[in-house]
Amino acid sequence: MRAGPSQEEIRRQNLGALLRHVHVNGATTRAELTNTLGLNRSTIGALTADLAAAGLVSEGGARETGRAGRPSLVVRPESQRVYAYALSIEVDRLRAARVGLGGRVLDVRTADRPRGTLAAEAVGPLAGFVKELHHSAPPGSVCVGSGVAVSGMVRRDDGMVRLGPTMGWVDEPLGAALAEALGDDRGVLVGNVSDVCALAEHTRGAAVGCDHVIYLYGDVGVGAGIIVGGRRVTGHGGYGGEVGHMVVHPGGRPCLCGSRGCWETEIGEHALIQAAGRSGAVGREAVLAVVDAADRGDGLAQAAIRQVGDWLGFGVANLVNIFNPETVVFGGTLRDVYLAAAAHVRSRLNSIALPACREHVRLRTPKLGDDAPLIGAAELAFEQLLADPLDATIA
Amino acid sequence: MRAGPSQEEIRRQNLGALLRHVHVNGATTRAELTNTLGLNRSTIGALTADLAAAGLVSEGGARETGRAGRPSLVVRPESQRVYAYALSIEVDRLRAARVGLGGRVLDVRTADRPRGTLAAEAVGPLAGFVKELHHSAPPGSVCVGSGVAVSGMVRRDDGMVRLGPTMGWVDEPLGAALAEALGDDRGVLVGNVSDVCALAEHTRGAAVGCDHVIYLYGDVGVGAGIIVGGRRVTGHGGYGGEVGHMVVHPGGRPCLCGSRGCWETEIGEHALIQAAGRSGAVGREAVLAVVDAADRGDGLAQAAIRQVGDWLGFGVANLVNIFNPETVVFGGTLRDVYLAAAAHVRSRLNSIALPACREHVRLRTPKLGDDAPLIGAAELAFEQLLADPLDATIA
Repeated sequence: MRAGPSQEEIRRQNLGALLRHVHVNGATTRAELTNTLGLNRSTIGALTADLAAAGLVSEGGARETGRAGRPSLVVRPESQRVYAYALSIEVDRLRAARVGLGGRVLDVRTADRPRGTLAAEAVGPLAGFVKELHHSAPPGSVCVGSGVAVSGMVRRDDGMVRLGPTMGWVDEPLGAALAEALGDDRGVLVGNVSDVCALAEHTRGAAVGCDHVIYLYGDVGVGAGIIVGGRRVTGHGGYGGEVGHMVVHPGGRPCLCGSRGCWETEIGEHALIQAAGRSGAVGREAVLAVVDAADRGDGLAQAAIRQVGDWLGFGVANLVNIFNPETVVFGGTLRDVYLAAAAHVRSRLNSIALPACREHVRLRTPKLGDDAPLIGAAELAFEQLLADPLDATIA
Repeated sequence: MRAGPSQEEIRRQNLGALLRHVHVNGATTRAELTNTLGLNRSTIGALTADLAAAGLVSEGGARETGRAGRPSLVVRPESQRVYAYALSIEVDRLRAARVGLGGRVLDVRTADRPRGTLAAEAVGPLAGFVKELHHSAPPGSVCVGSGVAVSGMVRRDDGMVRLGPTMGWVDEPLGAALAEALGDDRGVLVGNVSDVCALAEHTRGAAVGCDHVIYLYGDVGVGAGIIVGGRRVTGHGGYGGEVGHMVVHPGGRPCLCGSRGCWETEIGEHALIQAAGRSGAVGREAVLAVVDAADRGDGLAQAAIRQVGDWLGFGVANLVNIFNPETVVFGGTLRDVYLAAAAHVRSRLNSIALPACREHVRLRTPKLGDDAPLIGAAELAFEQLLADPLDATIA
């Protein structure tokens, strides 16, 4: 219902579109930008000059096109100079990185994290990492913001973690605490790890160019980052994508959320480890150990993989009926489960999902590996810059 | 990534925004349009003049504002002159209507429809209705297009009905057959009945102003029209929203789709009628009879309402965890089941859905009643006109 934009709004949109293009695609010739953005050469020249003056892109190093005529100048994001802080609070570790414009991880710090510690206990170490990263950044480089990925339900408005059932958290004001510890008035953008990984894989990974994507992330719990019509499904308060708490097994095992038979009780880390007769073991290493044992012929491990693979396919079929996606990506420990049980997953999908809903769906593993939470958290932080490049506060 | 629009594109956007505003909100003063669209008075005047010249709006009848100064002119959609044909193929009946710009149902035709007849068999009667509606339309009135609502999985690109499990249809080219029978080169837009009702209730019914909506529609089967971030979830091929085939009861009753334990086997028309000991009865009347009997103290009917209400709440809880919606609307026969079993639905929702996902959700019945499929089908047909008012072909 909103009316069309003003001239100045259009200029800002165009600046954002150009910067986003080189941020996502890397070095691009002016000729390619002219084609892709549908703007004329003089407009592209003026926009590039504005962005270069703001220190966001550089120009030069004309690329050989192999064609006759003057080679076109190349526009590059200032990846070394312009960066975001990307933080990740995972079940078993903490990470912090400097991620350059263009999505390059420039520098990382990692620490183990004892299970069961609170969000508040992660703030100090992460702030320490950010200080280290700041000191080792090249002189003259600038930070455009900070983002953090976390396994929990995040209130969109203020980054409050409402519930981290696998972490034992309730109502922890993570966004506010990190912003204070980092001394950043711009705030720290907080995203659920599945949402953030979906954003990363959609921008520069396994789901590039796909408008309808379900990215599943498993560790102790299971969540999804869902993209519909090219945009993330956040829900009314920011809590959408809690597919791990879709009940698939009425009267089944109790879940940490208080309900029973949730999907994550059948496909989470505990389910696999327990079915393989290894109760007590935890973490990704334990999941990989079950997958390895199944590979080597361990009957109990093979049965566990089959059982979890069946339930994985079962829930994916439900989601395929609901969303009719183009791509389903299996991330976190579900990557390993999927690779070991792909035939079971596909067979369940075929027997349960409606043919029209599943006919074009591609099942994929992530392309960005363990960097996805960091790259995605950085995307959250870059978002404001890309929406309005000359207005964003950079410090 | 697309660059900002040209001057001409902006003019078209503004024309569309103004026309959409009066289409959705009805008669609006120029002063209100100036405020709402954020454009200056002279621009509003010029846009209104263009739309009036095209016969899409009329101006006049200055409304008393009660304030000093010149009263502002009122802009109205040309509801009597500009209309769409809206068709609806329901389990038990066929309907066709002329719906005026502004969403007014001007004239309707209805016929009973024997269950089990094919889509092809609906085309002739519907085309006959359209001929009648055309002849009784006032001289000088113009049709901007046609839309049809149908209980089936609709391929977005061409209106092919891939599967209408409750109708026994497979791959019926409904869009093409109707366009040919109506002799309309512009084609006929085909939408799933749940999607189309969701569109209608979102535009002018129970979900106005809500960005995250699940509209459930029940008859023999169950489907959902889902709105995320203000936009309909269509999925990759157009088949999204098949929530009736979310399996909620592994190993449960066989479903018409070939799977078992689908949600619609627990909450569809058959489930209620059978649980009430009335096997053999069919249709909305039979559902209402069970609701009435429960009201009058029939124990078996009350147990049936409880059972179906429990399963209804169960599935809604799953969807609330997945989508974190603002509003859930119960349409079709689910309206009556919900009203009879609201306490059971709410109790299941509270015990299964995560508090953060459900805390702001409103459970609602539709506002548009039985007109929703017609109003929604007309919205499909108006869409092109609203996107580019002066470019649409009107005949």
